[in-house]
Amino acid sequence: MTKFRITILGSGSAMPTTLHNPPSQLIELNDKLFMIDCGEGTQLQMRKFKARMSKLHSVFISHLHGDHIFGLPGLLSTLSLLGRTADLNIYAHKEIDFLIKPFLVYMGKHMTFKINIINLNPESEELLFENQSIKISSFPLKHRIETNGFLFEEKKSASHIIREMIDYHNIPFHLIYDIKRGADFTTPEGEEIKNETITVPGTPSKRYAYCSDTAYAPEIVPYIRNVDLLYHEATFAETEAKRAEETYHSTARQAASIAKMAEVKKLVIGHYSSRYNEFGLLLKEASEIFPETELASEGKVFEL
Amino acid sequence: MTKFRITILGSGSAMPTTLHNPPSQLIELNDKLFMIDCGEGTQLQMRKFKARMSKLHSVFISHLHGDHIFGLPGLLSTLSLLGRTADLNIYAHKEIDFLIKPFLVYMGKHMTFKINIINLNPESEELLFENQSIKISSFPLKHRIETNGFLFEEKKSASHIIREMIDYHNIPFHLIYDIKRGADFTTPEGEEIKNETITVPGTPSKRYAYCSDTAYAPEIVPYIRNVDLLYHEATFAETEAKRAEETYHSTARQAASIAKMAEVKKLVIGHYSSRYNEFGLLLKEASEIFPETELASEGKVFEL
Repeated sequence: MTKFRITILGSGSAMPTTLHNPPSQLIELNDKLFMIDCGEGTQLQMRKFKARMSKLHSVFISHLHGDHIFGLPGLLSTLSLLGRTADLNIYAHKEIDFLIKPFLVYMGKHMTFKINIINLNPESEELLFENQSIKISSFPLKHRIETNGFLFEEKKSASHIIREMIDYHNIPFHLIYDIKRGADFTTPEGEEIKNETITVPGTPSKRYAYCSDTAYAPEIVPYIRNVDLLYHEATFAETEAKRAEETYHSTARQAASIAKMAEVKKLVIGHYSSRYNEFGLLLKEASEIFPETELASEGKVFEL
Repeated sequence: MTKFRITILGSGSAMPTTLHNPPSQLIELNDKLFMIDCGEGTQLQMRKFKARMSKLHSVFISHLHGDHIFGLPGLLSTLSLLGRTADLNIYAHKEIDFLIKPFLVYMGKHMTFKINIINLNPESEELLFENQSIKISSFPLKHRIETNGFLFEEKKSASHIIREMIDYHNIPFHLIYDIKRGADFTTPEGEEIKNETITVPGTPSKRYAYCSDTAYAPEIVPYIRNVDLLYHEATFAETEAKRAEETYHSTARQAASIAKMAEVKKLVIGHYSSRYNEFGLLLKEASEIFPETELASEGKVFEL
């Protein structure tokens, strides 16, 4: 089974605290390491939690508020000190040039690898990366500036052919590939054997969705329906619902409502406001709506 | 007596480790808070060690390598979130514009305070700040790029006039200010009373010098002679002397030689290479030359 592991590096928000680092997480999927957001201190968190920098495949930046990007110069600089040669793709909104271009000019010939900036589409769903086993896409969230959520998914694995059926129908080896991918089998006598009678479904594909930062936005539900794990920001408790609305953030209860509407398997909340130093209330408010809720915290790992 | 306190926020070097943060320290002097260097995560270290962000007076950047500056955007952004209104002076080499200007454009009208960049002179000693009780100056170090050290000093306090002598010579009140600052006293009868017979010296002024990053450079000795505390980089142990020379860094023994030549009272070494996870050897090599040596570490406080 594929490894599909999310590690929280930072679950705080704009104002740093001693309890939580600015936003960042790592998605390990099919032996590739992806990063979502890169707040200040992200590379230090990678060291702390023993993430392998050399495995980093690409970086996805949800939006260009400082707490989601100020760790980039340090991370890129360290990757260069480590002698990385592979290109690094950074998926972000186009204004990221303000941060990256001066940095590249500054680093100049000291950079050991190339950075490719791929602009996110803030208007609609878009496929960002795909190989034979995984798929990563983005979709619009609702924040003060252009912001995107991300969906990481395994591709549906091929069906398994039933061993006994190969013998029983005398299925030739060269047809097995197509049958695993849904083809029916026609016997030499012309009898059609339906695919579902000779196969069992493959491992169900797992899906992870990241939604931060965002106001309460039921319009995102179609993008994240039925995911195995949803990370949704919950900056505020319900007492601060007005503040959440004004700042285009969500309350814990709103995060849980989205999880419920989208019928996800599990919800993780984070992006806590610096006003809280205790998070039981946020968990309680979310769990009342959606019991399968867990609090994010630095170093916590979620395996799908 | 004036408070003169140095707090180490980071004593590592370019490559972050789990043991040491990138360079930064706070100098609390006469109720003002100054920062030297601002590596990634500095604002998080300030939180951790309960430094009062609102007290920050100005920032001194020794040179523009990433590990000394990548914490600036986050720090400036947080000061703005906290509603700072006082100007912030940043003393740095002129190329810092590459980092600050795009940041200011990005922050735009969200910045609540003004940043003044004051260019350091990489060629010779220069006074940077002075008020009635303290003085801050910079002087050139020897590194791969333009780099300056900093000297923080209390001004020599006025002498104390001897109470009994006021009565004995019948010294009028309006002359006391000048006598405390070195004037002799002439009696109404024309007799000249030498200053040293009617005063005792004031509290001796304390001095702190910061020298990082730098190769072994005896030419800096005149700038730091007799300081009470010298922070001098000691990136490498003696086995790496060649590497130190190539990269314009110092070994612990070289740092101690400088301390000895300058006849300082105490030496603190830091800016450790990420190759070390144990620092006893560096301390040993320095102490053999200069016994009054101490290792820097995050959160350590030196009171002068």
